[in-house]
Amino acid sequence: MATKPFAIIAGVGPGTGASIARRFAKSYPIVVLARNPQNYQSVVDEINSSGGQATGISTDLSDSKGVKSAFEQIKAQFSGSSLAAAVFNSGGGFVRKPFLELSEEEFAGGFESQGKGAFNFAQNVLPLFSPPATATTTTTETGTQQQHPPTLIFTGATASIKGSANFASFAAGKFALRALAQSLAREFGPKGIHVAHVIIDGVIDIPRTKGWVFESEDAKLDPGAIAESYWHLHTQPRTTFGFELDLRPYVEKW
Amino acid sequence: MATKPFAIIAGVGPGTGASIARRFAKSYPIVVLARNPQNYQSVVDEINSSGGQATGISTDLSDSKGVKSAFEQIKAQFSGSSLAAAVFNSGGGFVRKPFLELSEEEFAGGFESQGKGAFNFAQNVLPLFSPPATATTTTTETGTQQQHPPTLIFTGATASIKGSANFASFAAGKFALRALAQSLAREFGPKGIHVAHVIIDGVIDIPRTKGWVFESEDAKLDPGAIAESYWHLHTQPRTTFGFELDLRPYVEKW
Amino acid sequence: MATKPFAIIAGVGPGTGASIARRFAKSYPIVVLARNPQNYQSVVDEINSSGGQATGISTDLSDSKGVKSAFEQIKAQFSGSSLAAAVFNSGGGFVRKPFLELSEEEFAGGFESQGKGAFNFAQNVLPLFSPPATATTTTTETGTQQQHPPTLIFTGATASIKGSANFASFAAGKFALRALAQSLAREFGPKGIHVAHVIIDGVIDIPRTKGWVFESEDAKLDPGAIAESYWHLHTQPRTTFGFELDLRPYVEKW
Amino acid sequence: MATKPFAIIAGVGPGTGASIARRFAKSYPIVVLARNPQNYQSVVDEINSSGGQATGISTDLSDSKGVKSAFEQIKAQFSGSSLAAAVFNSGGGFVRKPFLELSEEEFAGGFESQGKGAFNFAQNVLPLFSPPATATTTTTETGTQQQHPPTLIFTGATASIKGSANFASFAAGKFALRALAQSLAREFGPKGIHVAHVIIDGVIDIPRTKGWVFESEDAKLDPGAIAESYWHLHTQPRTTFGFELDLRPYVEKW
Repeated sequence: MATKPFAIIAGVGPGTGASIARRFAKSYPIVVLARNPQNYQSVVDEINSSGGQATGISTDLSDSKGVKSAFEQIKAQFSGSSLAAAVFNSGGGFVRKPFLELSEEEFAGGFESQGKGAFNFAQNVLPLFSPPATATTTTTETGTQQQHPPTLIFTGATASIKGSANFASFAAGKFALRALAQSLAREFGPKGIHVAHVIIDGVIDIPRTKGWVFESEDAKLDPGAIAESYWHLHTQPRTTFGFELDLRPYVEKW
Repeated sequence: MATKPFAIIAGVGPGTGASIARRFAKSYPIVVLARNPQNYQSVVDEINSSGGQATGISTDLSDSKGVKSAFEQIKAQFSGSSLAAAVFNSGGGFVRKPFLELSEEEFAGGFESQGKGAFNFAQNVLPLFSPPATATTTTTETGTQQQHPPTLIFTGATASIKGSANFASFAAGKFALRALAQSLAREFGPKGIHVAHVIIDGVIDIPRTKGWVFESEDAKLDPGAIAESYWHLHTQPRTTFGFELDLRPYVEKW
Repeated sequence: MATKPFAIIAGVGPGTGASIARRFAKSYPIVVLARNPQNYQSVVDEINSSGGQATGISTDLSDSKGVKSAFEQIKAQFSGSSLAAAVFNSGGGFVRKPFLELSEEEFAGGFESQGKGAFNFAQNVLPLFSPPATATTTTTETGTQQQHPPTLIFTGATASIKGSANFASFAAGKFALRALAQSLAREFGPKGIHVAHVIIDGVIDIPRTKGWVFESEDAKLDPGAIAESYWHLHTQPRTTFGFELDLRPYVEKW
Repeated sequence: MATKPFAIIAGVGPGTGASIARRFAKSYPIVVLARNPQNYQSVVDEINSSGGQATGISTDLSDSKGVKSAFEQIKAQFSGSSLAAAVFNSGGGFVRKPFLELSEEEFAGGFESQGKGAFNFAQNVLPLFSPPATATTTTTETGTQQQHPPTLIFTGATASIKGSANFASFAAGKFALRALAQSLAREFGPKGIHVAHVIIDGVIDIPRTKGWVFESEDAKLDPGAIAESYWHLHTQPRTTFGFELDLRPYVEKW
């Protein structure tokens, strides 16, 4: 029976999600969620073969039944452990189009992915947290040690705070996600759960963007550095919770 | 055959929607939309019996087929006219509950009403606008006169810019609506269409809130005054479009 | 002895200030303030020769003694009247430069003009307001009629919400002005005084910008339309105060 | 002759400034600035007696001549070294009062401290940074090693984004400071210098607030945890600069 606190990362492809998984796997057994196992298999293998512990589960976060079943599997595997951290990093689910060319399904896709997906994730994740009664390191009832307050982090984007031409679907989804993050921070913060929202403002340096060339060097966000900021947020004590942090390359216009 | 420019108000009950309908009916024939005819019948009768022209159509804005059919009816009735203004004022569709007690349907209800409803409204409304080629008053091809740029206004709330405990559904919907409004303003503004978003921050003085008593007099927003501000936004020339205005009672904490 | 309510417009040159003066002069005797009489003389003459009543007073708003003396003059002239509206529209006072080339005086110039100037204006203006005890039109003690709540409006800019390279002085001043406006709205709103802040986001069509050519027609803000929005804010009842409105040309990028 | 990169912390009393000084002193020789030597002497002694290296200089940041002379002293002491990080943490300089009781000096005090003080600090600090030409760790011309991009962090407050009744002076100063931080981030970010702004939203647990009792445990911000977040921002590579982070206790209302 597992007894160490563990972490769950949702939305793990070869980019930011994989880096966050690697970072949290230094301290916790981790579960990674993605629709397509191809997306997470290599990082799961990498972690397991380098001394960490990782499990991949295929699920579509916008499907509440599927998510519930994934979490039954997680609860069975980590029975007796408490959840240390959870990260919602799902992307996709939207198209970039002139507004009048969007179908209702395309428009709603942003919310399906970012709103409903985050809702399903949060509803399953929150009951697994057991915040300590004081700010100091404690031993929980189940005998597990918890060094940092339980943490739920959501990944935002430029479109979380700005709606733009052709981005109605994505912006509607990302705005809704930020609304959810604020609502949860204000409801669960006082219960000792750290809810945070990170605005990623720029192009991330991932396989898909390898060919995108910029005038300046280092013009893309580094997934490893993003992961370090997520980890930093996780380590903050409940006296000093950060809610929102915006990250961008030094040359980004904003 | 109607030739005067007309206006459409969606979300008309006995409160703000009715006041906006009355205000725009001073200058335009109007169509009001609501799910329940009981909600709009009295204001439709009132306008028609006092020299104005109003038509009520029952439709559920979150149902794209129903909305399309309502707009077929509108286009038949106003064939030859251009649309002067459209207001999305739908409310409802959400519940106030602790997050872990929300069902997926309850959470998504905010987006169904505010996101999808506004999407369906905007997609049907935008093609009916024919912005003049210059800022001055013009006579359009169909011979109708258009004094002000075509205008699409969305009604927001405190929850449009702040997610709060127990308000995840409403905030997610209202944030998504604001994202949509910004996206449309940036896409259709340069085409001469005025898109605006009004944040109503406080309790409105409507039949449902009659019994709500506050310490100070005049502590509730006046629907007639809200309607005057919507009308003012409509009258702005394209040189000077207002995007966002926040309205609240003088004693409101914010 | 004057008994009609009057208005004061500070920062009147040939642009927005003059248009605001003209608009408010349709309803009130007005006083216009500017450092240089050349700036306001023509609009004062124009108003007086077309049936209105206008007085120009030369003063530097960042000089508290000078402002006090200007207001002594105003109080003598309008003894027995109450102040209906006051607009702070001062510009200038800043330079656009790379940060390391700014002198301390240049940097502080933005605050001198926008922060200290607005402070001096507000401190002298606020005691002249006598808000009615109820929202309805009332006859004040001095027998004057006051139709709208007393109103204090501040003119902001893009730099009120965004600091940019080379704009440290202007942004620091405009941010400080917005802080002042919010602080006053929250302190004096509950006393029935309407404090508002308007963000002018774009180039205004004034003599100084006549030569600035844009790709699109109507790409500059119309001072007359800006003035109409200020007047609209002034007419709002205390149940429905607008605090912030952003105005920009339809083609403006934002 | 010193060759290690060093750090400067301005505004060091027994609270946040001292914690930031301690944190950065783990990696760098540090200089602390404060008006009153009593404020920094104990942390300077503590650092020096525990293996670190700290120098205290008494200066009033709102006095440009005094600041210049302090920096002459710093440049002499650290000739040959480059500046790794600088933190502007000055507080004070403002009074909390009803607006009409504020003197001009009291109102301007917020800007003197936060606007002019930060201006003087930034103008002297920025020329001492020598950002590496690439994102990787480099050896600078002077032979010193620089692991992280040069960093300039400003300390904000709730009043940085909200003006409140009785807080006109403080809010005007803190808004101006945020404008300056944004302007500098946009001008110096592309040059490889990391400019950040931290919003401290709540009461900090320092000697002055020891007696302030809250209903919940851990209701005050921990200066040590604040310092860890400043350090984290400093360690971010230029691909992934954070600009703004808000920190508050888990029970804080916001």
